Amino acid sequence: MNNTFGTLFAVTTFGESHGAALGVVIDGMPAGVKIDPVFIQNEMDRRRPGQSAVSTARQESDTIEILSGVFEGKTTGTPLAMLLRNADQHSRDYSNIAGVYRPGHADYTFDKKFGFRDYRGGGRSSGRETSARVAAGAVAKLFLKQYGITVRACSEEIAGIKAEKHCWEEVEKNPVRCGDPEKAKEMEQAILDARTACDSVGGKIYAEILGVPPGLGEPVFDKFDALLGHAMFSIGGVKGVEIGAGFAVASSRGSLNNDSITPDGFVSNHAGGILGGISNGDVISFRLAVKPTPSIYLPQKTINTAGESVEMQINGRHDPCLVPRIVPVVEAMAAILTADLLLRARCSKI
Amino acid sequence: MNNTFGTLFAVTTFGESHGAALGVVIDGMPAGVKIDPVFIQNEMDRRRPGQSAVSTARQESDTIEILSGVFEGKTTGTPLAMLLRNADQHSRDYSNIAGVYRPGHADYTFDKKFGFRDYRGGGRSSGRETSARVAAGAVAKLFLKQYGITVRACSEEIAGIKAEKHCWEEVEKNPVRCGDPEKAKEMEQAILDARTACDSVGGKIYAEILGVPPGLGEPVFDKFDALLGHAMFSIGGVKGVEIGAGFAVASSRGSLNNDSITPDGFVSNHAGGILGGISNGDVISFRLAVKPTPSIYLPQKTINTAGESVEMQINGRHDPCLVPRIVPVVEAMAAILTADLLLRARCSKI
Amino acid sequence: MNNTFGTLFAVTTFGESHGAALGVVIDGMPAGVKIDPVFIQNEMDRRRPGQSAVSTARQESDTIEILSGVFEGKTTGTPLAMLLRNADQHSRDYSNIAGVYRPGHADYTFDKKFGFRDYRGGGRSSGRETSARVAAGAVAKLFLKQYGITVRACSEEIAGIKAEKHCWEEVEKNPVRCGDPEKAKEMEQAILDARTACDSVGGKIYAEILGVPPGLGEPVFDKFDALLGHAMFSIGGVKGVEIGAGFAVASSRGSLNNDSITPDGFVSNHAGGILGGISNGDVISFRLAVKPTPSIYLPQKTINTAGESVEMQINGRHDPCLVPRIVPVVEAMAAILTADLLLRARCSKI
Amino acid sequence: MNNTFGTLFAVTTFGESHGAALGVVIDGMPAGVKIDPVFIQNEMDRRRPGQSAVSTARQESDTIEILSGVFEGKTTGTPLAMLLRNADQHSRDYSNIAGVYRPGHADYTFDKKFGFRDYRGGGRSSGRETSARVAAGAVAKLFLKQYGITVRACSEEIAGIKAEKHCWEEVEKNPVRCGDPEKAKEMEQAILDARTACDSVGGKIYAEILGVPPGLGEPVFDKFDALLGHAMFSIGGVKGVEIGAGFAVASSRGSLNNDSITPDGFVSNHAGGILGGISNGDVISFRLAVKPTPSIYLPQKTINTAGESVEMQINGRHDPCLVPRIVPVVEAMAAILTADLLLRARCSKI
Repeated sequence: MNNTFGTLFAVTTFGESHGAALGVVIDGMPAGVKIDPVFIQNEMDRRRPGQSAVSTARQESDTIEILSGVFEGKTTGTPLAMLLRNADQHSRDYSNIAGVYRPGHADYTFDKKFGFRDYRGGGRSSGRETSARVAAGAVAKLFLKQYGITVRACSEEIAGIKAEKHCWEEVEKNPVRCGDPEKAKEMEQAILDARTACDSVGGKIYAEILGVPPGLGEPVFDKFDALLGHAMFSIGGVKGVEIGAGFAVASSRGSLNNDSITPDGFVSNHAGGILGGISNGDVISFRLAVKPTPSIYLPQKTINTAGESVEMQINGRHDPCLVPRIVPVVEAMAAILTADLLLRARCSKI
Repeated sequence: MNNTFGTLFAVTTFGESHGAALGVVIDGMPAGVKIDPVFIQNEMDRRRPGQSAVSTARQESDTIEILSGVFEGKTTGTPLAMLLRNADQHSRDYSNIAGVYRPGHADYTFDKKFGFRDYRGGGRSSGRETSARVAAGAVAKLFLKQYGITVRACSEEIAGIKAEKHCWEEVEKNPVRCGDPEKAKEMEQAILDARTACDSVGGKIYAEILGVPPGLGEPVFDKFDALLGHAMFSIGGVKGVEIGAGFAVASSRGSLNNDSITPDGFVSNHAGGILGGISNGDVISFRLAVKPTPSIYLPQKTINTAGESVEMQINGRHDPCLVPRIVPVVEAMAAILTADLLLRARCSKI
Repeated sequence: MNNTFGTLFAVTTFGESHGAALGVVIDGMPAGVKIDPVFIQNEMDRRRPGQSAVSTARQESDTIEILSGVFEGKTTGTPLAMLLRNADQHSRDYSNIAGVYRPGHADYTFDKKFGFRDYRGGGRSSGRETSARVAAGAVAKLFLKQYGITVRACSEEIAGIKAEKHCWEEVEKNPVRCGDPEKAKEMEQAILDARTACDSVGGKIYAEILGVPPGLGEPVFDKFDALLGHAMFSIGGVKGVEIGAGFAVASSRGSLNNDSITPDGFVSNHAGGILGGISNGDVISFRLAVKPTPSIYLPQKTINTAGESVEMQINGRHDPCLVPRIVPVVEAMAAILTADLLLRARCSKI
Repeated sequence: MNNTFGTLFAVTTFGESHGAALGVVIDGMPAGVKIDPVFIQNEMDRRRPGQSAVSTARQESDTIEILSGVFEGKTTGTPLAMLLRNADQHSRDYSNIAGVYRPGHADYTFDKKFGFRDYRGGGRSSGRETSARVAAGAVAKLFLKQYGITVRACSEEIAGIKAEKHCWEEVEKNPVRCGDPEKAKEMEQAILDARTACDSVGGKIYAEILGVPPGLGEPVFDKFDALLGHAMFSIGGVKGVEIGAGFAVASSRGSLNNDSITPDGFVSNHAGGILGGISNGDVISFRLAVKPTPSIYLPQKTINTAGESVEMQINGRHDPCLVPRIVPVVEAMAAILTADLLLRARCSKI
């Protein structure tokens, strides 16, 4: 199943950036969960294009339709499918990209893998696919809410500008989704400057899962952190993932890095809430690095489908920084994963 | 399947550190691959305990027995099972750890998940489980060899000491598995110093997969990098993973980070050989951060199974640095993953 | 994945009989297969309600919309999703069935499993779900066509009336889908008689898969016949499945039942084209028993949701015999399974 | 995963009839189940060769060794692996079968699938593989016992001789495992006669699962009956499976076939304890047809690996009737399946 994530809470997405629709099927949703369509739509709005000056100008309402699996406001235990029509498919001329491989994109690799590709935008490899994940993530959040589990993420660094704090109540108040209002303004300006320079910038995202009971995650291959790594690297543009103390552990010592345990909990959280692949009841914390958008308006060297050297220039509408719109996707994937592990944990004991 | 990695080349491990045996079943091995038992045993020897002054003193020959799936020197297409008896189970007294949760270990989380645990060492969460992965990885390497694909890894940093080069022919010549002979000596000394100080140190591993044809990996959830993240974070002690340029992308720009394409290949490899989740034919490169061994001989604060505060001191035999012995495990997991994606790619086109 | 069939050609259906829509996602469709929407719609028409006097009067056009996975007439290798709106949801009064368990239906078991149920018709357990399978089966047939593989099924027995021959060109010419025109008329009359009597009748279906190369199916748990059994019993109302000689083998002898092999092929086909779970190149033949429709208009004894004894009478629109409309579903499931095994066989050898 | 059955209680077998060993890994066994090795060995003894005059003369003690997953008498929640060495591999001359395809066996199909085969007996396709299933089934029975669920099976027909009753306490008292002592004697004689005639006979098995709570099984593809069909047809030699009333439904009517419901339960059980794919709390009943052993000592026509017509004669040691030794395998598969569905049902509701 190439397009499914999760085993018991299994999320399958479908759809291309310029096809008829995107959608998602959640198979394994337990019966009896209250579904709030307004909440789901709000989550969609957090990811949708055209939401601010720092994002792409493509206009999509990203209106979600629930097709199945809900009856009288509650999940039925059968597959919950949701649909999202592509409105602004923008019937423009693709001749400048149809025969050319855009650097940093999946054009070349799709051709090698499938023999040909849908050359209208990114097709299946477009970030637009993640809208379906956000819909599923919203449902996962509604499920997790029943157990007091929440997920949150924010921009920690953009274009080299680092947040010095994570005031969570500030995050949704600025277009870059940063918990440090001062730095948020600098980040916003840096993104606009990059756009003016026909270039793009990267950044980092910090995220937390709160309220996870101890015991989630499987000891060997399906460690909570292993699946977090899987989930996060499945988001296009992510090139690095850290759990807890992350890369800093490399130069630490056991006596410093071990989190002492007291009757009141762990004294520190270098582990990021996971020990031996299993949640320990502490906050699960992780961060990820997002590359600068590969779609830039500067001329670039590449080859065409005939293998000849060409210079190309991308036009169209693109985010000069992916970070702000990836924030809700990170939350969605973390919620989906946690929902899955919560169900899997039901089978660990007699 | 909590203990399986891979979909078509599916590796299932079993066994505990102090049980009768460890083992692995590879389901999905194509028929006709030549199996060289000497090569497999050599790979085991690279991971086995007691191999040098910087590793644990536990003595295990780690002799592999092939139980099934091979006939007249070739794989038959049926499950290839391998067994590894635990020899040095060291019947010592576990009373000091049976009722206490070791910091940095899975003791607490196992109890929470399963209701009780095998308190003789790490049980299923022991690094010893990875011996079974190395056996499977050796078989995966023999399979990949048919396609000209190889995997290699080395220590890049230990205790803050950084290698300045990766001379691959040097890696197996020193006990820390570093490609920089000068730095290797410093690393070795740092590990011995940590042991003397009853402490432990962490580090970084760099790895490459060579010869991968373009087209491996699936576009959405099962991106090559997503599965690499999954595979690497499934190794105990890994707290960070980077693909290609890794965290450095956060402060880069699109015009710098995009890898230009020429008729002769990519000009740079910030992508780490993966675009849109699919291999692009370039070297697949990644690195990971390994935490300092949690088993240290200094007294530590923790709680017992009754929830009371206690001070404990670990004895036994442990590696003061996990990095050198994780190197072959990284290779094994990368080889298993690549074998799986190689098979999955057989179904991408008509 | 409760709602998925297949591993490499993985079909997931969603939707309820009285919800907004039904749909299907095929994940694993290789790129490059020509998709003929007219053929798919024709297959839908073979299963749709209201097609003849012997089927239900519910009116549905069952118009299929392809949402993704096809570009310029060919599959792209990404998920192929199809949608089917429910038109005639018939907003009637469900008060007579909402609180009562219909005998022979899944009402009671759904309540026990999920805690409540969508009481408007069968919900997820309705035969209407199979429309999504027929859509997927049509796509599977288009894929199999590339390899010269075809699937066909017909009614072999209805209400005790047995076909004496299977003239395949006759099957679609009569409303009961029987290859024996004389018997077809008797079957048709028997169904109409059952309707008049407010009762229903059962029957048998015979099916064949032609052109399957030797080597499909896996030796142990995923034998071709095991998966055929799985596929056929997954169709509501099926109570028996036979492969090849079927139950007749119980009273046969090895010397009679073994199919001798000659340079020109097998002399007989008691095996039904499968040996050791793997196709042998001969016709794969099987039959199944379908129970009489549980929805009958006679009064029936049952209990209500309070556990009290009640007499109920079903109204609404139902097929007095399920057999004719299950024929295309049998073909669809056989095609989906064969497509899956065809892909799986790509990985059996180096 | 070609060699795995089950999703949450996932059983993977490995090993060939003439290799070093057979084995099984159960992944997903919940922690805390008491394991009784004597019970497991007793189950093995019910299937082992050489147990009576009507079975093969091959001598195997089939001694089970538990390798992992059990600590202090209880399951730990980690993979439970068991091993079974092949003792009597009987180093005889295989030259008469190495280059020839035995009729009714998987020789031809293995060669076509894998390119070559282990010609020493059936290899992976041997009935000997089912010994590993019986071991797993015994563990499943111990798990099910906690919930009051039991499984039983018996020979219902052999060589055309039909049991007229199923006295369950008689089943293990006669070598053919029939619940009708009179008929059992006739069956035994019929098998001995078949052996004398260098031929073999088939039969039917009847089985029940008792104590299954309502709510097990998934509505669409993973119906309880669909998985039963899968499980039963995965046993070599099975050519037909019926659930409840089975093929008799074909000539029944809705008014007769529907099982009326009363406050005390179902009045009849034509459904075989399953409605809409979900257990209804009644006894789950099914039967299967087993073909006559393909290994007979009469000369047979076949082809060699060069495709030439040859006459061959099998020697060696074979059961003249598979039915008695398949009885415990049927129980094992039913127990494994029920254990799996019991776990899956834990996730159907919030």
